[in-house]
Amino acid sequence: MEQAYKFLSNINCPDDLKRLKVSDLPVLCGELRDFIIDALSCNPGHFAASLGVVELTVALHYVFDTPYDRIVWDVGHQAYAHKILTGRRERFATNRKFHGLKPFPSPEESEYDTFTCGHASNSISVALGMAVAAAMKHEDRQIVAVIGDGAMTGGLAFEGLNNASSIPNNLLIVLNDNDIAIDRTVGGLKEYLIKLNTKSNYNRIRYSLWNFAKTLGVLDEKHKNKILRFNNSLKSMLSNQQNIFEGMNIRYFGPINGHDVEGLIRVLSELKTLSGPKLLHIHTVKGKGYEFAEQDATIWHAPGVFDKTTGKRKASCPAGMPPLYQEVFGKTLLDLAYKNSRIVGVTPAMATGCSMNILMNAMPHRAFDVGIAEGHAVTFSGGLAKEGMLPFCNIYSSFAQRAYDNIIHDVAISRLNVVLCLDRAGLVGEDGPTHHGAFDVAYLRCIPNLTIASPYDEHELRNLMYTAQLPDKGPFVIRYPRGRGSLVDWENEYEEIRVGTGRCIKRGTDVAVVTLGPLGQVARAAVDELTDGEQKRVGLYDLRFVKPLDSEMLSEIGQNYRTVITVEDGVAAGGAGSAVTEFMEDHGYDLPVHRLGLPDKFVEHGPVAKLHEICGLDKSGLKAFIKEQLAES
Amino acid sequence: MEQAYKFLSNINCPDDLKRLKVSDLPVLCGELRDFIIDALSCNPGHFAASLGVVELTVALHYVFDTPYDRIVWDVGHQAYAHKILTGRRERFATNRKFHGLKPFPSPEESEYDTFTCGHASNSISVALGMAVAAAMKHEDRQIVAVIGDGAMTGGLAFEGLNNASSIPNNLLIVLNDNDIAIDRTVGGLKEYLIKLNTKSNYNRIRYSLWNFAKTLGVLDEKHKNKILRFNNSLKSMLSNQQNIFEGMNIRYFGPINGHDVEGLIRVLSELKTLSGPKLLHIHTVKGKGYEFAEQDATIWHAPGVFDKTTGKRKASCPAGMPPLYQEVFGKTLLDLAYKNSRIVGVTPAMATGCSMNILMNAMPHRAFDVGIAEGHAVTFSGGLAKEGMLPFCNIYSSFAQRAYDNIIHDVAISRLNVVLCLDRAGLVGEDGPTHHGAFDVAYLRCIPNLTIASPYDEHELRNLMYTAQLPDKGPFVIRYPRGRGSLVDWENEYEEIRVGTGRCIKRGTDVAVVTLGPLGQVARAAVDELTDGEQKRVGLYDLRFVKPLDSEMLSEIGQNYRTVITVEDGVAAGGAGSAVTEFMEDHGYDLPVHRLGLPDKFVEHGPVAKLHEICGLDKSGLKAFIKEQLAES
Repeated sequence: MEQAYKFLSNINCPDDLKRLKVSDLPVLCGELRDFIIDALSCNPGHFAASLGVVELTVALHYVFDTPYDRIVWDVGHQAYAHKILTGRRERFATNRKFHGLKPFPSPEESEYDTFTCGHASNSISVALGMAVAAAMKHEDRQIVAVIGDGAMTGGLAFEGLNNASSIPNNLLIVLNDNDIAIDRTVGGLKEYLIKLNTKSNYNRIRYSLWNFAKTLGVLDEKHKNKILRFNNSLKSMLSNQQNIFEGMNIRYFGPINGHDVEGLIRVLSELKTLSGPKLLHIHTVKGKGYEFAEQDATIWHAPGVFDKTTGKRKASCPAGMPPLYQEVFGKTLLDLAYKNSRIVGVTPAMATGCSMNILMNAMPHRAFDVGIAEGHAVTFSGGLAKEGMLPFCNIYSSFAQRAYDNIIHDVAISRLNVVLCLDRAGLVGEDGPTHHGAFDVAYLRCIPNLTIASPYDEHELRNLMYTAQLPDKGPFVIRYPRGRGSLVDWENEYEEIRVGTGRCIKRGTDVAVVTLGPLGQVARAAVDELTDGEQKRVGLYDLRFVKPLDSEMLSEIGQNYRTVITVEDGVAAGGAGSAVTEFMEDHGYDLPVHRLGLPDKFVEHGPVAKLHEICGLDKSGLKAFIKEQLAES
Repeated sequence: MEQAYKFLSNINCPDDLKRLKVSDLPVLCGELRDFIIDALSCNPGHFAASLGVVELTVALHYVFDTPYDRIVWDVGHQAYAHKILTGRRERFATNRKFHGLKPFPSPEESEYDTFTCGHASNSISVALGMAVAAAMKHEDRQIVAVIGDGAMTGGLAFEGLNNASSIPNNLLIVLNDNDIAIDRTVGGLKEYLIKLNTKSNYNRIRYSLWNFAKTLGVLDEKHKNKILRFNNSLKSMLSNQQNIFEGMNIRYFGPINGHDVEGLIRVLSELKTLSGPKLLHIHTVKGKGYEFAEQDATIWHAPGVFDKTTGKRKASCPAGMPPLYQEVFGKTLLDLAYKNSRIVGVTPAMATGCSMNILMNAMPHRAFDVGIAEGHAVTFSGGLAKEGMLPFCNIYSSFAQRAYDNIIHDVAISRLNVVLCLDRAGLVGEDGPTHHGAFDVAYLRCIPNLTIASPYDEHELRNLMYTAQLPDKGPFVIRYPRGRGSLVDWENEYEEIRVGTGRCIKRGTDVAVVTLGPLGQVARAAVDELTDGEQKRVGLYDLRFVKPLDSEMLSEIGQNYRTVITVEDGVAAGGAGSAVTEFMEDHGYDLPVHRLGLPDKFVEHGPVAKLHEICGLDKSGLKAFIKEQLAES
C-alpha cells in the first residue's frame, strides 16, 4: 500500500503537476525521491541516475506541454521520475517485472515516452528528426533532448550535434553533467566540461545581462532575433571566449545547478521562447538525496534490493554459489595478462559490468576504458593489434551492434588478432528488447576471417579465452551470457581447444541435439529426464564453434541420425542452427534440422528463465520438443 | 611508356625522396601532379582528393621515417601520391584494375600502407591504438593520422579524439581541410573550421612566438614540457580564445597552407619533436593544380576517363542506353515526393553518388545531407518517421554497416516507417572489398519487423519505392546494385507490389532457380541458352522479398521440384538462399537447396563482370551449375 504523499499522491499526469505552485515543487521533489528510494529498495532497478534528475524531470513537465511537446530521454535509466509523473505511479511496483512497466521509456507504453531509449547517445539525432518534422508540419511543438555527459561521448551524439547546427530547428538539448555514466566518464569531453564548469564566468555574466536586458524591455519576445547579435557583441566584450557548442552554432547556457528546481523552471521557461538550437548545461549529482548512492554512484547504478535505512545491499553472491560469467571473464583476463605481456583490455564504459575493472585495478596501464564509444573500442583494438598487441575488447552483445562496421572493416578484413568478448549474449532479462543479445551470431557469422565460439560452461570460457590469445588466431569472438555459471570449482587448468571443434557429450541413434553455449546444460537436463529408452536414442553435442563449424562432428551427425535439433540463445533466423542447416544442405545430408532459438520478434522483458520458457528454450520446452521428434523419427 | 621526370623518375622509395633538397620539392610536387593527371586521364580513379594532398604526402615522407613511422590515411581516396612515392609508380597504370594495385591503401600490398582505409573516420582510433602499442613496446616510432574535414564529421572520429586526449600518446593528427568530402562538407564542424580559418590570428601569433622563443634558445628540445606552460600563458595573453581541440587537451596548430611544401616540412619537423597529442590544421584545395577539378571538386572526385588538355570527360551515359539504378532512384524519389508530401530524403554525404541531389535541387527543404554520419542518418530518420514524415534514407550497403544498431534500435523496434534504400548492394567492382555490399541481407534478415526487398529491374525498383511509401508499411529496405539497369523505357506506371510476394517468371519440372535482384536477369539469360528439353525442366522465380518470404510461392516450389538453386549478389552464408533453406526445412520440404552467392572471403577488386565470373555468378557459371543439377536430378 502506497504511503500518502502530500503532493505526489494527487499527481496522475503532468496537468496535475502544473496546478502546484512553483514554491511547492521542492517538497514534491523530496517526495518523488522518497518514492523512488522506497520502491527500488524492494524492486531492483536503475537507481542513482533517476535520483539525479528528479528536479529536472519536474521542471521539464512543469514548463513544457507534454505530451504535445516532446521530451527525448537519452538512455532510459534516468526516466523513473518521468514515469511516476506521467500516470504510472500506481503501477511502478511492477517496474521491470514480467508484463509490468517496461525497463526503459517506450512509446508502446505511454504517449509521454516519445522514443525507444535503451542505447546511449541517440537523443539528439531523434530530437532533431522530430524538430524538423514539426517544422515541416507547421506544428509549434517544442522538442527537448536530455543527454548525460557519458552519452555525449558517443559518436552518434556528436553526429547529431554537428547536424543540429546546420538544419534550422528550435531544439533544446539539456546536457545532464554528473561526471558519471555507469563508470566514471572518461575522455577529452569530460575535461572540457570541467573547464566549462570552472570557467563559467562568461556564461554567467552573459546570462544575467541577457535577463537584465529582457527586464528592461530591450529584448522582448518579438525581437528574439536581436538576441543573437546581442550575444555576439557580448562575446566580443567578454574577450571572445570560444565554446565547443557555440563553435558549432548551438547556443550554450550554463552550467547551472540541476537540483534547484525553481531555478531550472526559470531558465527553461526563458529558453522555451528562444529560437534556434541551444544547449543547457546542468550540473547534477548521481544518486542525489540518498547519501550512500552519492558516495559511490557506480555501485548504486543498479544496486539490486537494499535496506533503505542502512544502505545495505543484499549480498549478490552468497558463498558457495557458482561465479558469474563476468567474474570468470575478469579474473581469467587478469591471469592471462600476467602470463602474456601482449594482452591488453579495452572496454567502452563497461569496466564494472563486464569485470574488466579487475584487470584495470591490478594493471592500470594494461586496460583502457574508452568511454561510451563501441565503434572506437573496436577500431582502437584494431590499431593495437596491427602493432602486435593482443586486445581483449569486451562489449555487451547488443551494444556491439554499434561496432558492426568496425568489426568488418577494421578487424576482419586484415585478420587482426583481436579477441572480441561479447558479454550478455542471449536474453538478458529485465533490461528487455533493447538489451537482449539476440542477433550477434546471425550478424557475425557472415563475416569472413572471424572465429566465433561460445562456451558451454565456465571451464570452456576459460579455455576459449586461453586459446584465443595463442599466436596468430586472428579475430576471435567469444559470446557468453549475463549471469551465473554452474561450476563452483570454476578455476580449471587451461587447455587449448582446437579451433572449429565441437564436443560429443553423449551419442544416440535417432535425434541429435546440437547446442551452442550454456543452454547446452539445459538441453542436457532435459535429456536426463527422458526415459532410458528415449535417452538411448538421443545424442547430445556441444557445437562450441559457430565458425568454423566442426565438419567432422556434423558429418558424423549427418550420417548417423534421423533428425537434428539445434538449440541456441539467439535468433533462429540466420543463427547457429541456420549454419548447421546450411552445412547439412551443402554436404548432401538430407535429415531435417529443427532450429530452436529466439523468435522473429523483439522479446519482451522479464526474468531470463521466464523468457526462455516463452521461447520454448527452458528444460520442459526442450524436453517436449525432443520427445515430439523422437515420436516422429 | 612513362615520361621522364627530372626527380620523380628516380624515386622508388621514401629514402630516394629524402636525398632531394627541400628546395627541389616544389618541382617534384609538380611532377607528381602531372603524373597523377596523366595516369588518371586514361585509367579512372579517385582524382581530386589525391591532387589536394600532393605537398602533404611529400612532406610527410620527407620528414618522417616511413615505414617505421606510421602514416594512417583516413579514406584511401587521397593516397595516390603516397603509393607513387612508396615503390608503386611503375605499377600505377594497374591501379584499381583486376589483380592490379588495390583501390585503397592495404597492408597486404605494401608495408607503407599501415591500415585498411576504405571507410571514413577510422584513422584517429587506429593511430591511437598504434601509438599506445608503440609506447607499450617502448618503440619511439611516430604515428600520424591524416583526416579530412569531411571524415571528421563522422562520430568515430570524435570518439577517437575524445579518447586520444585521455590516454598518454604522441599522436599527430593532420586535419586536411578542403571543405569538401565527396559532396560539400556540411554541419557545425565545418562552420567551426571556417571560424578557425578566419580567426587564426591567435594561432599564427602563438606559432610565431613559439618559433621565436625556440630560436632564442628559451625553449629547446630538452625543455619541451615548458612549452605547454608557454602556450598557456600565451593563451591568457591573447585573450583566452578557446578551441575545440585544445578544449579536449589536444594541442592545435594552424591553419597553415597545405600547398606550401617547404612550410609543411618546417612545421612537421617541429611538431615531430613535441610530445603529447596534437593536431595540425592545414588548408588545401581539392583538385589543386588541375583547373577543371578546382572548379568542381564533386564532379572530379572520380571523373572517369577524361582528356587532360580540354578537361572533357568521356560521356558516362551514351544516349539510348538504359539508365543507372541511381538515376532511377533519384528521379523516382523526386516524383514520389511531388505526390506524397510526407516524403523527405536523407543521405549521409552521398547525395551525388545516390542521385538524391535530384530531390535536393528541386526541393531543397525536403532533402537532408547530414554529413559523413550513417548512424545519425538512420536515427534522424527514425525521429522524422516517429512524427509522421516518411524518410527515404539512402546509404551505400557497405556503409550501412555503420548504422546497424540504429536500424535495430531506432527504427525496427518501434516499427517506424523508414524506407532504407541500400545503394551499391552486391559487388561494386573497382572499389574492392571495403566497398562491396556483400553482407546486408545476412545482417538485416535476422531483425524483426523489417521488410527487405530487392528489385529485378528498374520497373521493380520504382514499384518497390512506390509500395514502400504507401501507408503503414513499417521499416522497408530496398537493396539495389551500383550501375546500369537493363530497360531503356524505364519510366513505368507505378504498381503496388504486395509485400512478401515473389514472381514466377517461368515454370519448370525439376530445378527451380530462385533469384534475388538483377542477377535474376543473368539467370534468365543462362536458362535461355539451355536446350529446349532442359529449359522445360527449369523453373525461374524472382524472390523479390527476402523478408517476409513468399510462402505460397516457396511451398509450390517445395512441392513441385526436385532441387532448388538460389542466386544472389551477397554472401551465401546467412543470405537469401539461407532464408529459402530455412523455409524448406521449417515446412518439411526435403528437396536440396543449393545456395549460390558470394564466398566466405573478402572478394578482391576488379570489374563487376569479372568478379561475378570468379564467384560463379556470371551467365556461364550459372548455366554450368544449372546443367549440373539437371543432370543429377
